[in-house]
Amino acid sequence: SVKTHYLLSSFLSLSQVIDINDKNYKKAMKKYSILCLLYHKPIPDGKELQKQHQMTEMVLELAAQVMEEKEIGFGMVDSHEDVKVAKKLGLVEEGSVYVFKGDRVIEFDGLLSADTLVEFLLDLLEEPVEVIGNTLELRAFDRMEEDIRLIGYFKNDESEYYHEFKEAAEQFQPYIRFFATFEKSVAKELTLKMNEVDFYEPFMEEPVTVPDRPNSEEEIVAFVTEHRRPTLRKLRAEDMFETWEDDLEGIHVVAFAEEEDPDGYEFLELLKEVARDNTHHPGLSIIWIDPDDFPLLIPYWEKTFHVDLFKPQIGVVNVTDADSIWLEIDEQDLPTAQELEDWIEDVLSGKVNTEDDDDDNDDDDEDDDDKDDNTSENPKQYFPSFP
Amino acid sequence: SVKTHYLLSSFLSLSQVIDINDKNYKKAMKKYSILCLLYHKPIPDGKELQKQHQMTEMVLELAAQVMEEKEIGFGMVDSHEDVKVAKKLGLVEEGSVYVFKGDRVIEFDGLLSADTLVEFLLDLLEEPVEVIGNTLELRAFDRMEEDIRLIGYFKNDESEYYHEFKEAAEQFQPYIRFFATFEKSVAKELTLKMNEVDFYEPFMEEPVTVPDRPNSEEEIVAFVTEHRRPTLRKLRAEDMFETWEDDLEGIHVVAFAEEEDPDGYEFLELLKEVARDNTHHPGLSIIWIDPDDFPLLIPYWEKTFHVDLFKPQIGVVNVTDADSIWLEIDEQDLPTAQELEDWIEDVLSGKVNTEDDDDDNDDDDEDDDDKDDNTSENPKQYFPSFP
Repeated sequence: SVKTHYLLSSFLSLSQVIDINDKNYKKAMKKYSILCLLYHKPIPDGKELQKQHQMTEMVLELAAQVMEEKEIGFGMVDSHEDVKVAKKLGLVEEGSVYVFKGDRVIEFDGLLSADTLVEFLLDLLEEPVEVIGNTLELRAFDRMEEDIRLIGYFKNDESEYYHEFKEAAEQFQPYIRFFATFEKSVAKELTLKMNEVDFYEPFMEEPVTVPDRPNSEEEIVAFVTEHRRPTLRKLRAEDMFETWEDDLEGIHVVAFAEEEDPDGYEFLELLKEVARDNTHHPGLSIIWIDPDDFPLLIPYWEKTFHVDLFKPQIGVVNVTDADSIWLEIDEQDLPTAQELEDWIEDVLSGKVNTEDDDDDNDDDDEDDDDKDDNTSENPKQYFPSFP
Repeated sequence: SVKTHYLLSSFLSLSQVIDINDKNYKKAMKKYSILCLLYHKPIPDGKELQKQHQMTEMVLELAAQVMEEKEIGFGMVDSHEDVKVAKKLGLVEEGSVYVFKGDRVIEFDGLLSADTLVEFLLDLLEEPVEVIGNTLELRAFDRMEEDIRLIGYFKNDESEYYHEFKEAAEQFQPYIRFFATFEKSVAKELTLKMNEVDFYEPFMEEPVTVPDRPNSEEEIVAFVTEHRRPTLRKLRAEDMFETWEDDLEGIHVVAFAEEEDPDGYEFLELLKEVARDNTHHPGLSIIWIDPDDFPLLIPYWEKTFHVDLFKPQIGVVNVTDADSIWLEIDEQDLPTAQELEDWIEDVLSGKVNTEDDDDDNDDDDEDDDDKDDNTSENPKQYFPSFP
């Protein structure tokens, strides 16, 4: 048969991942326009743990093979053996990939899969600002309601304010998307004045205008930094760890809903409605997870949270111990927006919390232990390490 | 640091992939409600080739770990060592995964990544027919323009015609989606009569009604089989090899367009317009590839086809030798729908073909060879093996 897996044929050439040390790191920095360094724990003893390490290595090797033509280099820095290099380069968090591009260091704090890493790097290769040339292209912009995005109207690509906007965009690339238009018709449809920049929060219908136009790079950066935590955000593979670490007082309100599923879609529409009505509440930040985006994690999440992800769910998760409590949802009769809002208010006031049901939970856990006799792990023991 | 990759922690328990042979295959078939068998070539000699095999094994191991709770088993069948078992089970294509579920054998002819395989299996665990309960849920259905889908209106879930519809759905699960409604209001919006089934071709505005309602399972299966090759289809990881093998006279018309990119979006809208205008042309079948869905393949495709995938492209690809010819596209000034249609007509009439430019192409190839001195492979030599 002629069919082989394409991923495999890429392994026919030699591995391109550099074992970074004191002697070779400067050369590597010079050689590549973008250098990606995985800062990792020392290679462990034990067959199974070594397999883990091997798999991480394969992710990097695969990414390296794929990105070879784009002059992107890959390396590994051992947190025990290469203390000096790590310090010089400012590597801090084990398990993160640090991306060096020109003067910038960007921490990749996402899912360490070849797909996700390569997509992240390809996004870094694009222009930091995308230009919208006509109203049909504007429809592509309109459809991106899941993402934080900014759009500015400038005279042309030589405008000094466009230049400032572009400099700001580079600070957030590829996590936050920046758009610009030089067309009066496009600006009119967006009700943008000359040199004005609008900030779109995910899932909100109306943008917020960055005040005091024309804006400097610093003003735009400060505005984005202040407004970037949205009322409702979708968990993305490329920054999932960062998002998870951005909790509010140790908890997350988490909603699982499959957008492609009719029930999931309906639930999500409700959730957006609630988010829009409560966007001015500073204590509210909901993470929406579409299980379709993380197939490998579905069984893991179901085990950790004791929920069925084939139907919509909303709950509160304590980020330190993974304890959680979930709203009871009848699939045939989803809650109304008002009921959802009441429940969220109870969460914010502390009336619904992960501790009150702990007696019940203990019972649940015992039941689960009985069922789980064939698995040696307690899923919770791994929770602090993920997500 | 507490951060570890979740994929890795799953390797702490033992591997679950069974080395299938004459003696254990029956037991394995009995033990699991779903059994997935990779039919593979013998393990090769040579370090690099063994690494390939190891990686394939890891994909299965990862999927096995993740699906452990769902009673899904995984095994490998060696095409040389296990000839007898392969024959008994009907395994034919090396590199395919055969999924045994009850009486059905489903060939997974997609990208062999853990993500894709697990998503495929989770889809197999769902009900073959999804029920639309109200008009808000119907909006989720409306949004699935990329997929082939059927929807029927039945009295209730005990209706014999619903039963026939469900039996038909099982034959195509998870590749083609089947929906049903028992609600008059939903049926009215779809202009469906009682026991009527509509077939939606991807990207078309109007459905086609399956004739002679009420329909038997066989009628529905025959109708889907006859109509399933669409005028415009999106390449999906879960059946990409199957799609690629479904060429028309040895060629594919392939369009690359990133839906999230303003230019890509605009180009795609044009393409849909052309597809809608030409849906009755039996010789026209365009494959749309969104590069965002296949980040690992972007550099590979750029190398094979000599195109820049940061902008929209449309071309003709000869599936046997990967020779291709691409329409020249000015990003600032995309072709009109009419120009696109004219070009496609020239392709269908043979006026535009992959052979005419071969002198030019040879020159191009020489240039490329100069540039590619650091790579030992000729990308074309791998083309027959992918896709």
